[in-house]
Amino acid sequence: MAVYSDYSPAELAALLRPWDVGDLERAQPIAAGVSNSNWHVHTRRGAARTRHVLTVFERRIDPAELPFFLGLVDHLGRGGLPVPAPVPTVSGELWTWHRGKAAALLHFLPGEVIDRPDAAQARSAGRALARIHLRAASFAKGRRQTLGRAAWRRMLDAVGPDRLATLAPDLPALLAEELAFLDRNWPDRLPSGIAHCDLFPDNVLLDGARVTGLLDFYFAATDFYAYDLAIAVLAWCFDERDGAFARPRLEAMIAGYEEHRPLLAAERRAMPVLLRGGCLRFIASRAADWFDADAPSAGGRKDPLAFVRRLHVCRSLDASFFSDPPQGAIAGA
Amino acid sequence: MAVYSDYSPAELAALLRPWDVGDLERAQPIAAGVSNSNWHVHTRRGAARTRHVLTVFERRIDPAELPFFLGLVDHLGRGGLPVPAPVPTVSGELWTWHRGKAAALLHFLPGEVIDRPDAAQARSAGRALARIHLRAASFAKGRRQTLGRAAWRRMLDAVGPDRLATLAPDLPALLAEELAFLDRNWPDRLPSGIAHCDLFPDNVLLDGARVTGLLDFYFAATDFYAYDLAIAVLAWCFDERDGAFARPRLEAMIAGYEEHRPLLAAERRAMPVLLRGGCLRFIASRAADWFDADAPSAGGRKDPLAFVRRLHVCRSLDASFFSDPPQGAIAGA
Repeated sequence: MAVYSDYSPAELAALLRPWDVGDLERAQPIAAGVSNSNWHVHTRRGAARTRHVLTVFERRIDPAELPFFLGLVDHLGRGGLPVPAPVPTVSGELWTWHRGKAAALLHFLPGEVIDRPDAAQARSAGRALARIHLRAASFAKGRRQTLGRAAWRRMLDAVGPDRLATLAPDLPALLAEELAFLDRNWPDRLPSGIAHCDLFPDNVLLDGARVTGLLDFYFAATDFYAYDLAIAVLAWCFDERDGAFARPRLEAMIAGYEEHRPLLAAERRAMPVLLRGGCLRFIASRAADWFDADAPSAGGRKDPLAFVRRLHVCRSLDASFFSDPPQGAIAGA
Repeated sequence: MAVYSDYSPAELAALLRPWDVGDLERAQPIAAGVSNSNWHVHTRRGAARTRHVLTVFERRIDPAELPFFLGLVDHLGRGGLPVPAPVPTVSGELWTWHRGKAAALLHFLPGEVIDRPDAAQARSAGRALARIHLRAASFAKGRRQTLGRAAWRRMLDAVGPDRLATLAPDLPALLAEELAFLDRNWPDRLPSGIAHCDLFPDNVLLDGARVTGLLDFYFAATDFYAYDLAIAVLAWCFDERDGAFARPRLEAMIAGYEEHRPLLAAERRAMPVLLRGGCLRFIASRAADWFDADAPSAGGRKDPLAFVRRLHVCRSLDASFFSDPPQGAIAGA
């Protein structure tokens, strides 16, 4: 359950006062999202009914970063992307304050989260990611990547080899080897800018194969575009049964991305390394959460080993897997 | 004089045959550009007259890089930018071969080169540079920066301190100190992608304050966008009389750039270092040309000391010069 702030209907109504959206009819807590509290709020003014998402920012999101996070979504929305753009208050602010917490009212987006996306949906997600990259390039703010390589090492060191070994005996050695590999092989000079950095299927709303919502920009940061695509590939393109790359989805996602932003040869060549980096990023944060007594329990914690399995697949990739796509396969279609 | 290939009218007519532009009426050599030979070519078919620029690629441009250079200009042209886009041959190629040299037929652009641009023109140039960055982000090819920091050092080492000292006695020490400074302070993780890297006034055609042509993408490479802007600032924004920053032009150029792509705080902070890097880049290549017996003589060689003077100005910049713009000054208006 992701609603940390427990508000009475009267208090929610008071909270909504800075926005010109009429009277609160009904509020429904949303049981998703680990970083904030969310409600579907239904309001009414005369005969007009509206529906929005109310977000109260909890721990993990620094209010000092709201101008970036909410400004970015506002900018993407103005660029025609389907994002939960913040509704300005009557005084023109993108958020307000309530009992010491920041709160924003976001446009409601239709569509649903798909657990097991197909190739057409992966293609749409790839297309949307490229549109995010291109549109965000004209956004005025940036954000340093706080979950880069140094942070992976720091998080894993904080967990320590003994606790990591409780997840899998050979995990400490594997991760040490992997961090050293990434230090030696991480690319530089790839095209970069604001990247979403968390485009998992549960952050994409779909209506069939059409993307109707791109959610949760709270990990967005300046980084390589191709690393962002690698994260999306890790999140969308593995076969649920055998754990191998789901080639049709992989090819579709990259082809979709390239409809708007074709990859450079250097980005293709770097993809195996970027994928391994993406695995480390999620192994590190999931392991840190796993052993964090304060982290949300049960449903909130995610299995670090899911990305250890992906890491093994990525380590065994042939160097030419991305750089020499078969004609009409990864690059084409 | 920049025409290295001396062709008879009959040979030029033969050279033009792959393009469907009618019969050659007149060809006028263009005395600009140090990397290739150029002609204004006037053709006629029936009553229709057309005018193009014919380019024959000489030394300095590797034909293997033509798919990048000409493809980039083609891509920018399709995006609505005023560039000398290549006219495809009847068989659809962006260039052809003639006597072992590549040749392209480029759209003629009106406008003129302005020696001493004013603030309105600097603003237009800044605006155009941002549009190049945003549009080029969806181009499928990239190009490694071959004139980056390692190349500056290599070129200066090849000239050697003795010859550098003939330009100015304290130059070898200054440049050694500067290279060490740049190695320590060069930023990473700034937004990057294809940068023009040579947007001097002689590469911009103007009609009043309107940009009618963006020329010479032969130094374009993947690099920081803010470094590209720093190069343009070095080229456009110094006072011809006292050698100091021409503040009205500087503020106008940055404001123009930010109309399309606002700078991040990190890019503003890095600007003094990027400017010093830009000075080194042109000091190094100009010094290398200066002492190169094979380089074009007289008009073709450019004074390295012009950028040593700029370097001294950039070294004396207050750290807050770009990062805390006065309201309505650099950032605004």
